Amino acid sequence: MAVKEIEGGVCAAAGFKASGINCGIRKSKTKKDLALILADVPCSVAGVFTQNIVKGAPVVVSKKHLRGGYCETARAIICNSGNANTCNADGMEIAEKMCSLVAERLEISPKDVFVASTGVIGQRLDIAPIEAGIDGLFEALSTDGSRDAAEAIMTTDTHSKEAAVEFTLGDKTCRLGGIAKGVGMVCPNMATNLIFLTTDVSIDPEYLQRALSRDVKSSFNMVSVDGDQSTNDTCLLFASGLAGNDRIRCVGPDYTAFCEALNAVTVKLSKMLAKDGEGATKLVECAVSGSASSYTAKRIARSVIKSSLVKAAMFGADANWGRVLCALGYSGAKTDVNKIDVSFTSKAGSVEVCRGGCGVDFSEETAKKVLSEDEVTIEVNLNSGKFKAVAWGCDLTYDYVKINGDYRT
Amino acid sequence: MAVKEIEGGVCAAAGFKASGINCGIRKSKTKKDLALILADVPCSVAGVFTQNIVKGAPVVVSKKHLRGGYCETARAIICNSGNANTCNADGMEIAEKMCSLVAERLEISPKDVFVASTGVIGQRLDIAPIEAGIDGLFEALSTDGSRDAAEAIMTTDTHSKEAAVEFTLGDKTCRLGGIAKGVGMVCPNMATNLIFLTTDVSIDPEYLQRALSRDVKSSFNMVSVDGDQSTNDTCLLFASGLAGNDRIRCVGPDYTAFCEALNAVTVKLSKMLAKDGEGATKLVECAVSGSASSYTAKRIARSVIKSSLVKAAMFGADANWGRVLCALGYSGAKTDVNKIDVSFTSKAGSVEVCRGGCGVDFSEETAKKVLSEDEVTIEVNLNSGKFKAVAWGCDLTYDYVKINGDYRT
Repeated sequence: MAVKEIEGGVCAAAGFKASGINCGIRKSKTKKDLALILADVPCSVAGVFTQNIVKGAPVVVSKKHLRGGYCETARAIICNSGNANTCNADGMEIAEKMCSLVAERLEISPKDVFVASTGVIGQRLDIAPIEAGIDGLFEALSTDGSRDAAEAIMTTDTHSKEAAVEFTLGDKTCRLGGIAKGVGMVCPNMATNLIFLTTDVSIDPEYLQRALSRDVKSSFNMVSVDGDQSTNDTCLLFASGLAGNDRIRCVGPDYTAFCEALNAVTVKLSKMLAKDGEGATKLVECAVSGSASSYTAKRIARSVIKSSLVKAAMFGADANWGRVLCALGYSGAKTDVNKIDVSFTSKAGSVEVCRGGCGVDFSEETAKKVLSEDEVTIEVNLNSGKFKAVAWGCDLTYDYVKINGDYRT
Repeated sequence: MAVKEIEGGVCAAAGFKASGINCGIRKSKTKKDLALILADVPCSVAGVFTQNIVKGAPVVVSKKHLRGGYCETARAIICNSGNANTCNADGMEIAEKMCSLVAERLEISPKDVFVASTGVIGQRLDIAPIEAGIDGLFEALSTDGSRDAAEAIMTTDTHSKEAAVEFTLGDKTCRLGGIAKGVGMVCPNMATNLIFLTTDVSIDPEYLQRALSRDVKSSFNMVSVDGDQSTNDTCLLFASGLAGNDRIRCVGPDYTAFCEALNAVTVKLSKMLAKDGEGATKLVECAVSGSASSYTAKRIARSVIKSSLVKAAMFGADANWGRVLCALGYSGAKTDVNKIDVSFTSKAGSVEVCRGGCGVDFSEETAKKVLSEDEVTIEVNLNSGKFKAVAWGCDLTYDYVKINGDYRT
């Protein structure tokens, strides 16, 4: 049941092609702004979406097309950057039209096409450049197209994000991969997470949804860059079934192996999203252990990662552990403060800063060395149980303020 | 029942003296670091404290001295800056000792003395400079000492904060005033709100506590600078009874008038705290109206004020209203998005940016002028009821990152 990392991103699994082009939604004539992911065969599909009550039109349309998690005929995802198609007058119409443009070409129902958008909100998304670009988008489709699609969904991401793994179910080799975009903006405007995953595993949509819904709780939902939950967050998972495995129709060893492979990809993408947070100079991980419950561990890990004071300290490579205890203390979770140990760890080493809720003497020099690495872990042991959780975030920097404080125009 | 602003801060009410000195807790030989507020007579006292499960030792001691809200013999508050006396080995002992030092001088029980500390956490607070400074602290006591005390509790606050009002109960002139410190740090370390209020109104401690507990929900609890709730937040209210009014022992017109005066002072101090947030260049107010419930209005106002993206936009004077809707949408409160109107207002004018959940055309030039003022209001009308709430915060600036990202040493 070994899970091996491979290349190929969203096209790693059998039966998927992708493309990404510049169609003219953005002012730039070179930056790609339209992506397509196409399955050769009808797929099971699972999806999770933003919990924000202000939802982008594409989120509403894609949720509808998911048909409560029982859709087995999904074929394509179309996604634009440069405009979030949110909080405007005819957003629903435009989002449906994007699906129709793809469906007409494939002679399928628009319901089997999913849609996502990211970029500025509150402005009308012009369908004209998408209509004009659709031919080129189909022509560019390729099993090598993952990178192009990953680039086309970027906003202020500094690099594209792809991941894929190979694993076996019975005697069949299976693959699962995906692309993601993180937090960034166009004009600038809104941080949005978009994640598109594909696999060639054969699995009932019910179990696909179950696997995805469970997975995001320990992967994407544990990522925070600035605590602002976007109106357009979308994660979709297509399963083509072309690996030829015995179809997963229940919980069992195959389902477990599938969940493990899924988690390998989603955690890798989660770390990429956190590390490429706006203005970030480093990935900050908070690993909570010794918790009396999974809920407490998750709540504390997220609270520490979201704290502006902790994030600013990480930027300054300052071993300011009091802020970690402070963030832990207002998380809403209950734990015995007098049992808490805290250490900072990176590839430069490890330094214990707090034991039993009180400060311990430590070398500021060593701590600074540890915290100056570009991936840092805040280890919190609650010494109160056996549950664990990990959350990922980034530091708070001058560039975050610059990117988000500059005028839109 | 008119409430009139007056001078005098925490010494405005009859029966109170205050002082602030440098005793040597800080490295600086000039910055004041020890404050005392002394009542001439035994007082009713009310208090509210941080909800953080990691609590500073002074918070634990002061809560104990409050005796469940039935203490009528309170006499003094001693407070130091430069060290939070939190997460260290003998913090409780030191906090109790601070109370004893004051009590011995007055020949009263240490239980009638309240204590607070702000500054770096996780380091031992040396009692020696406090012991050595206690004589000077008493000698400096004066009815003009409010400013000195307000300065002595400051950390990275850029200026001291005082407010006071005069009002009448029956035919008696009453006064209520206070001092506060906001978010800042010493080494730097922890953001902490400390608020000390005094009044000469005669009131049972039960009703004093009731008034204060209710008041903070619409005043200090509606302030957010960075969402990090300190381990040491403390708000204390002493009532000397020297105004000679008929003692307030029940809810009625006098109680209502008292609550109104209290709110005038706490809201004024709340705005001062928000405006002087670390690195802040402006006060940002979010006024929610037309809400179906007070809970929804408060929750939305706080969510908007806390959003890093909204705060960064305010710094850039960017009318990025999509971020306001976004923050409103993830607040956890339910409301009909299609009814929401948003405007930005300041003394430079007002500009409507969103109507019925959709963007409206507006002049970017006017918007920039409105948002460039040093006090800006984000007006959100939910058009769904009659409840209102106001929250106060500040913008997110380069200086916030600088203050909190720099090394402690």
